[in-house]
Amino acid sequence: MTIFSRIIAGEIPSYKIAENDRFYAFLDIRPMSKGHTLVVPKQEIDYLFDLDDTLLGDMAVFAKKVAKAIENAVSCKRVGMMVIGLEVPHAHIHLIPIQKEGDMSLANPKLQLSAEEFEEIAEKIRKAF
Amino acid sequence: MTIFSRIIAGEIPSYKIAENDRFYAFLDIRPMSKGHTLVVPKQEIDYLFDLDDTLLGDMAVFAKKVAKAIENAVSCKRVGMMVIGLEVPHAHIHLIPIQKEGDMSLANPKLQLSAEEFEEIAEKIRKAF
Repeated sequence: MTIFSRIIAGEIPSYKIAENDRFYAFLDIRPMSKGHTLVVPKQEIDYLFDLDDTLLGDMAVFAKKVAKAIENAVSCKRVGMMVIGLEVPHAHIHLIPIQKEGDMSLANPKLQLSAEEFEEIAEKIRKAF
Repeated sequence: MTIFSRIIAGEIPSYKIAENDRFYAFLDIRPMSKGHTLVVPKQEIDYLFDLDDTLLGDMAVFAKKVAKAIENAVSCKRVGMMVIGLEVPHAHIHLIPIQKEGDMSLANPKLQLSAEEFEEIAEKIRKAF
């Protein structure tokens, strides 16, 4: 069972943003910016491009809905998207609110936020969803 | 008319990878790694998350097919995906072959390749598509 499956199952707590029968979205706890969210399929599939066409297309549409909520909740010019896929063997899309291109550089230090800050951001995005 | 629309129209040359009625894929000429490809919708839409659900879902599936061809043509562990969206006002997905997470850092210098190298890579990916 991957760490994301444990999060989806509620065994590990998360700052949940949204969920439906096939996908789950929650705040990244090592955020590149405030509102940085992960979108994962509930099915444990390692590599994004191994999702079947229907699941992949629907995941993109679910990610779009989450991105629109992030835009409405957090100050940003765009919500960028990133998939690396080498850390956790469970496909996930990073949605990262950005002001400029450099905000998406992996070389940037991650933000340190308190539990209260995470909860406040999550609540704003949930309301906008 | 965006630079990508000019490329799609053939006014500006590109190392084309694949094309259908709605999408076009070609090599990024400032690649983060060999095989770095851009996927764009033929329709001029600035922001990826403004694509309607059908077009966005189908674009993800088209990008997956291109990513599978890249994997078969270029040595890599995964094909990463990135959307920034602040440079050219025409939505595009970066597909970036990677060996490790750091290969996707925007802080890395871009590769300098000759026309012959670009053409050789494009030909390999086209054959794998």
